[in-house]
Formats: sequence, structure tokens, C-alpha cells
Amino acid sequence: MNIIKIETIKTFFGEDIQILNEENFISIKNVKPILSADQESLVFIDVKAKNKPSLVSQTRAKVVVCDFVPEDKESYKDKCLIVTVNPKLLFARIINNASKSNFKSSIHPSAVIHPEAKISQDCFIGPYCIIGKCEIGPHTVLHGNCTLYDGVRVGSNVSIDSGAVIGATGFGFVREDDGTPVPFPQLGGVVIGDYVEVGANACIDRGALQDTVIGDHTKIDNLVHISHNDVIGKNNYIIAGCVVAGSVTIGDNCWIAASRILNKVHIGDNVTVGFGALVLNNIKSNKTYMGVPSMDVEAYSKLQYKLQKMIKS
Amino acid sequence: MNIIKIETIKTFFGEDIQILNEENFISIKNVKPILSADQESLVFIDVKAKNKPSLVSQTRAKVVVCDFVPEDKESYKDKCLIVTVNPKLLFARIINNASKSNFKSSIHPSAVIHPEAKISQDCFIGPYCIIGKCEIGPHTVLHGNCTLYDGVRVGSNVSIDSGAVIGATGFGFVREDDGTPVPFPQLGGVVIGDYVEVGANACIDRGALQDTVIGDHTKIDNLVHISHNDVIGKNNYIIAGCVVAGSVTIGDNCWIAASRILNKVHIGDNVTVGFGALVLNNIKSNKTYMGVPSMDVEAYSKLQYKLQKMIKS
Amino acid sequence: MNIIKIETIKTFFGEDIQILNEENFISIKNVKPILSADQESLVFIDVKAKNKPSLVSQTRAKVVVCDFVPEDKESYKDKCLIVTVNPKLLFARIINNASKSNFKSSIHPSAVIHPEAKISQDCFIGPYCIIGKCEIGPHTVLHGNCTLYDGVRVGSNVSIDSGAVIGATGFGFVREDDGTPVPFPQLGGVVIGDYVEVGANACIDRGALQDTVIGDHTKIDNLVHISHNDVIGKNNYIIAGCVVAGSVTIGDNCWIAASRILNKVHIGDNVTVGFGALVLNNIKSNKTYMGVPSMDVEAYSKLQYKLQKMIKS
Repeated sequence: MNIIKIETIKTFFGEDIQILNEENFISIKNVKPILSADQESLVFIDVKAKNKPSLVSQTRAKVVVCDFVPEDKESYKDKCLIVTVNPKLLFARIINNASKSNFKSSIHPSAVIHPEAKISQDCFIGPYCIIGKCEIGPHTVLHGNCTLYDGVRVGSNVSIDSGAVIGATGFGFVREDDGTPVPFPQLGGVVIGDYVEVGANACIDRGALQDTVIGDHTKIDNLVHISHNDVIGKNNYIIAGCVVAGSVTIGDNCWIAASRILNKVHIGDNVTVGFGALVLNNIKSNKTYMGVPSMDVEAYSKLQYKLQKMIKS
Repeated sequence: MNIIKIETIKTFFGEDIQILNEENFISIKNVKPILSADQESLVFIDVKAKNKPSLVSQTRAKVVVCDFVPEDKESYKDKCLIVTVNPKLLFARIINNASKSNFKSSIHPSAVIHPEAKISQDCFIGPYCIIGKCEIGPHTVLHGNCTLYDGVRVGSNVSIDSGAVIGATGFGFVREDDGTPVPFPQLGGVVIGDYVEVGANACIDRGALQDTVIGDHTKIDNLVHISHNDVIGKNNYIIAGCVVAGSVTIGDNCWIAASRILNKVHIGDNVTVGFGALVLNNIKSNKTYMGVPSMDVEAYSKLQYKLQKMIKS
Repeated sequence: MNIIKIETIKTFFGEDIQILNEENFISIKNVKPILSADQESLVFIDVKAKNKPSLVSQTRAKVVVCDFVPEDKESYKDKCLIVTVNPKLLFARIINNASKSNFKSSIHPSAVIHPEAKISQDCFIGPYCIIGKCEIGPHTVLHGNCTLYDGVRVGSNVSIDSGAVIGATGFGFVREDDGTPVPFPQLGGVVIGDYVEVGANACIDRGALQDTVIGDHTKIDNLVHISHNDVIGKNNYIIAGCVVAGSVTIGDNCWIAASRILNKVHIGDNVTVGFGALVLNNIKSNKTYMGVPSMDVEAYSKLQYKLQKMIKS
């Protein structure tokens, strides 16, 4: 991380912020949780934190990002407060800005790359990556030990963590009369948008007769499985351990947490699927679903309440 | 994929099929979903599809595999229909036949192979594979970045996807009186039959005092975990994200979907374990089990019905 | 495994054991399950086995570790019995002792290691490992294809199986007003204690503003996901397929089986989380929790009993 100066903060983010006691600002050299900070830390106070004013006086950090002006001026007379509506977001943007210039493009000589692969010049490709006949957009990072099979198209500013496998054969079979499975052709590709992140040891299979698609800014966590023919929109979080079965569609801005989604299910936009849910049916936009099998959060709460009563009866 | 000609189809599959309007057959160059096909696509109509006759007239493909002769001759006068009882199976067999000759055996020079490993001459071993003192049968494919520990025996025509780890130490410990875990010896091997597929980043641990066994034609999906001492029969589908705990036995022809199976559970033949089920008890042959914890499908349906009523009451 | 002699057993473990018919002891060359043993096998009889005396007479092994003296002397007149309170533990210790000397330290020349990484001299680092700016303690083993990002500190006598990824970016984002996710800084490290085991393809993410911590002797199975900021104590078993979300704390001596634990949950000491449980709330020390969502085992049993009745009604 580079040292952060007040000018940088003002230049990039000044329009939406108010700075109190600017004279107390000191250059920031690290980030830490609020109660273990030192003088040179940048810290933020979460919008939902309890007893926010007391956190301002408790932290040793000189510079605090928060969403309020404390009533008691004395409590922050030796600090610099940066006031904004979304402190966590501003904090993230400041630190990301300070870390940005650390990106260095390079292709490790050990990477095994198909001669017809098209890789943008300013990518970072780590050691022992295996890249088939693929396309990779600018400013994309493949950490070490990743595998991209033939037919994978990756956008720009994508990050793929170690051990991820993209474009492997989808899991599709037809049984002979005697039960022997015959592989069903898996000849589609994988299309990954811009600013996507793929976690460590995650798997995204190629489509059967069409492509598997991941939209821009969708973030896929470690050990997630995305199956053949899935079409996933933009700005989604697909959190650790999710299993998304084949031919599922997911809209935009969803939050899918450690869940399992049955094949051919359609999920709308702005859907929240609660931690550990089992999704067996379609979910309309703007819904929150929970449970095993999953249901609308109101039905879920009612069911849990009645089951609790049943236990106590 | 090689170009597919009518002679090839007749030679290999002619006995069980009826060809209508053979004069309309044109050489096939690609496969696509039925509604996005072009003239040179091979398409099939699923047995369970709705409104099958209208799909024949809607698709742009000239050659259609289906299980019926449309009543309206006009609707397919410019097409060639290949009629068979199981169109999906015939479609798969035709395409697999056209792709077969693409297999090229080779051992990538970067593969690290134990000097006493016995590897058949016509295998494909991808980059950065690590192969211990193992045996690998003919016509088997290891995609890149796979790891086989010592003591793994793999049959013929097996496919192992990238990142799979086979033969790692099983998870077995005994606690000392003070709680410290002592590793229990894991000295068995792994035996994998013929025509098995192992998905990307799947794990199959070696046995403790005996072998872990995977039967012929069993298909293991991505991110599946198979534990020490598991003995799994033939023709099974073990679908993405399954966790099969230790000393489990599974018969033949089962379908196990994104499920978790407790250690020492015995599952018979022809068993279906529903998506996301949690199997805590033995399952007899020919049963369908669902739910968390899993139960016979009739009990499951009854329970779900009553819980739905409970929510609405 | 080296040949095991009676002197070795007496020297290391003699204080807590009683040896009957020492004259029948023969050098041990292998380990096998009790009913498939040969004369030169070491076998043990589990404390919970049914009909233990008959197992003594049935096994072909000459040397049997057990926790009882059979009443019928005739039944073991040609065997040597090693009697101890915990036969499985003694068996494990004897075999581990015989296997110990097989450890050979080495760093495979293909390992890609950061120039500032500090690696103890007597480690084993397998092929194609990628090691960032890390510290690795003595007598630690990294099997092949492992990835350690910058900022990972690993203790002594640790074993990390193939495909494990340690220190990857945690999954943390803040949404812009338009829904676009902005990565939240993930600048912490990972601290792994002594005698920890990390399974194949397991993932341990680095912390956001602090470290992710794994205590001594904690055993992590294959395909487990440990998130940013998790602090896990000593002597825990985290069994295959567990997803531990962010900022979770786990005490000591727990058994967590194929479960999912929601973020920010606190779990005490000596807790058992049943196979496949979904943990959404804190669990106090010494409790057993089961179910989806998880609850105290007594509540769980009561609920299952009532649901069974409901199905039958």
C-alpha cells in the first residue's frame, strides 16, 4: 500500500465528503480494525455500529471515516474526521486507489498457453497456469495454478484466483438401456464479462450446445461450482460453496450465499438467497428466499416460529 | 468435430433408426440448441419436450433427430428426420463418434512422474500433473494440474479433469486424552475402474487400511469429495458438491445429486438421492430419497405438504 | 512402513500396556482390517466393536491390540495380545512411529518461491508449489500444486495437501449506489499453528484488516472453505465440505462435520456440530448441535420425533 495523503483523498473523493479538523490529518500508512489501530491507520466506523461516537474517542487512529458529526466536539479535537454517507465504501475506495499502482503485468514463463490463444498485453498470468485456445481481455489477473480449457473468453479487469478451473467438460450423460452412461456432447464455451472475480478452486464448466455466461462485476467466491449452460447476470455475489446446477439463470444484483440451486431454476434480479438455502423453484425479482427447501422469507419465518413452538409443546 | 455424413450414421446406428426424406440430408458441421440452429446443425428433440411437432417446423436445422413421425408431412418436407426411440442418446452417440478421432496420446514434459509409475503408452497426461507410484490404464486422460499420490490405480478410458486430487491422506484421527489428534494410519490405495470420469477439483482420498474403490463408468462431478474406504459401484452419477463421508458403500446405477452422505451409510442399486439431500441412514435398492435429513420420497412429499399447510394455517 | 519389533513397542509405549503371550509376537510388516489380515499384520479391535472375543479368534493376525483379556485362554493361545485402554490410539501411535523415519526434506526445483520467503531448512515442498512472501516452520510438508499467497505464516510439522490455496483474497465488497461491487481491502494475513493439516483443494482466505488464524493441531479436511478473519482454536476437526463464513470464531476441541457456519457466529470449546448442519447462531461450549438450521441435540431429537409423527398421521 502506498502512503495516503489528504490531497489524494480530496482530489478523488472530495465532492461527497466533509473534512473536520483537517489540521490533524497525518499521512496514512496502514489499515487496521478500529480498536487495534495505531496513529497512522485509516479506520472507518460502520453505519450499523453501536455507540458510534464512543468509537471515535476510543480509536488511536488520527483519521476516521464516519457518517456523522459527533455532538461532543471535545471527543474528536485531536482527530481528523472524514464524513460521508457510506464510510465503508469511501474507505474501500481510498485504499483501492492507494493500492492500484501496484499492478504489474507479466506472463510467467512457466504458463502453458495455446499458440492460438489471444491474451491482452497488460495481463498478469501467474506460474503454472494452463490456458487453452482462449481470449483474455486487458488488465486481467490469473493467479498461479489456474486452468482455462479451450473456448473460454474472459473480459477485462477480471481476477481469477489460484486453482480455479474454467471451461471443463460439463456433467451431462444419457444412459444406454443397460444403464451405461454415454457422455452428452459438451461443445459450448464460457463467456466471462468485465470486472468478474473467480475464487480459489472454483469451477465454471463450459456449456453443452451453448455458452455458460457470467456477467460483468459478478463475484464468485472460493469453491463455487457453476454448471454448463448457466447464464448469470451482473453484479451478483455467488458466495463460497454454492453449487449452481445446469441451465440455471440468475438476473442482476443478487446475493446467493453458500446455497444449492437446482438445474433449470430461474432467479430474477435483486434476489437474496439466504445462507445455506436449497433452491428448488424459480424466484421472482426482489425476493428474499431462505430454507431447505427455500421459500419466501415470510413463509420461512412463520414456519420456523411454528417449529419452535412444536419443539416446546 | 469432424463433418458428419449420412453414411456414417447409417453404418453405426442404422439398425435402430428410420430416416425420412433422406434426400434433404446435408453434411453436419456443428451442434446447436434447436431454436438457435443453422442449416448445418444437427439437432434433437427431447422426448419430454412440449409441442414437439412445432419444433420440427421452427428449427432452421435440416437434420432433426426425434422420436416421432409428424402427422403433417408438409411441416418437414424440406428436412431430413432421423426417428429413434431415444433421440438424445442417438444424438450423443453420433457426435461422440464424430469427435472420437481427435484423441491424441501424449505425456507433457512438465508432468512429474514417479520412476516406478506404470503408465500405458496411449494416455494423455497434461501439463503440471504430479503422478506418484501409480498405475494408469490405456486411453486415459489426465487434464493439467492433476495430482495422483502413490498407490492410485486408474483403469482405461478414464478422464480426470484439472485440479483433481486422488489418493491424498484420508481424514482419520484418534484423540489423545488431552484432546490432541493423532493421525490414524492411511495406508490404503485408490482403485478407479474403466470409463470413470473425475471432475475438476474433485478429491478422492486413499483408504485407511483398505482401498477406496470407484467402479466402472461411474461419473464424478466437480468439487465432489470421496472419503477413505468408500466403495462405489458402477454407472453412478455423483453430482457436483457431493460429500461422501468415509466407509460409505454405494451400489450401481445411482444418481446422487449435490448431497451429503454420512460415514458408514450403505446405499443400494438404482437409488436416486435428490438434489441437496442429507443422507444419514442406509437406503435400499430402487428407492428415491429426498430431504434434510433424507427420507423416502413419499414420506418427503407428505411432510412437505403438511409443512405448507402449517405455514398457511 | 518399517518392520515393527516388540522392543520398539515396549520402549515407546510399554508403560500403559500389558502383553500376553509375548512368545507369539512376530515382526509386523503390514496393517490390514481385522478380517482380511495375514499373519504379519498388526490389527486392533475397536472399543465399540461387537463380539470382541470372537474377533480375536477369527483374525489371522498374530498380534492383536485390544482393550480386554478374553476369558477363554484357548482362543488366543497362538496369538500375542497387547492390551491397552485405547487400542485404536495405540495402534495409530505404533504405526506412526514406524513410518516416521520415512520423512525426507527437500524443495522441488519447480517450486516458485518469493525471494523474501522464509522457509525452514527441513521442509518438504512438492512440485509446482507457488509460495509468496511467507514464513514456513520446520518439518512442514507442502504436497504438490499448493499455492500460498503473500502474508501466510505456517508453523512446524504442518501438512498441506495438493491443490490447497492459502491466503487468497477474502470475499468482501461494498456496493456503489448503482449496485456495482467495490472490493473491500483484504490486507490481513493467515497464521497457521503447529501440527495443522490442510486437506486437498481446501481454501483459507487471508483476513481483511486482521489475520485469519488456525490454531495448533487443528485438522482441516478436503474442500473446506475458511473465510477472512476466522479465528479457529486448537485440536479442531473441520471435516470435508465445511463452509466457514467470515469473522467466525471457533474454540478448541470441536468436531465440525460437513457443515455451513454463518458469518460472525461464535462457537465455544468441545462443541460437536453434526454432519450437514447449518449453523446460524452462536453455540456455547460443550454443546452438540444438529439440523438445518442447527439447534441443541435435544431440541433436534424432539423435532425429528414430532415430524416423524406428523408424516405418519
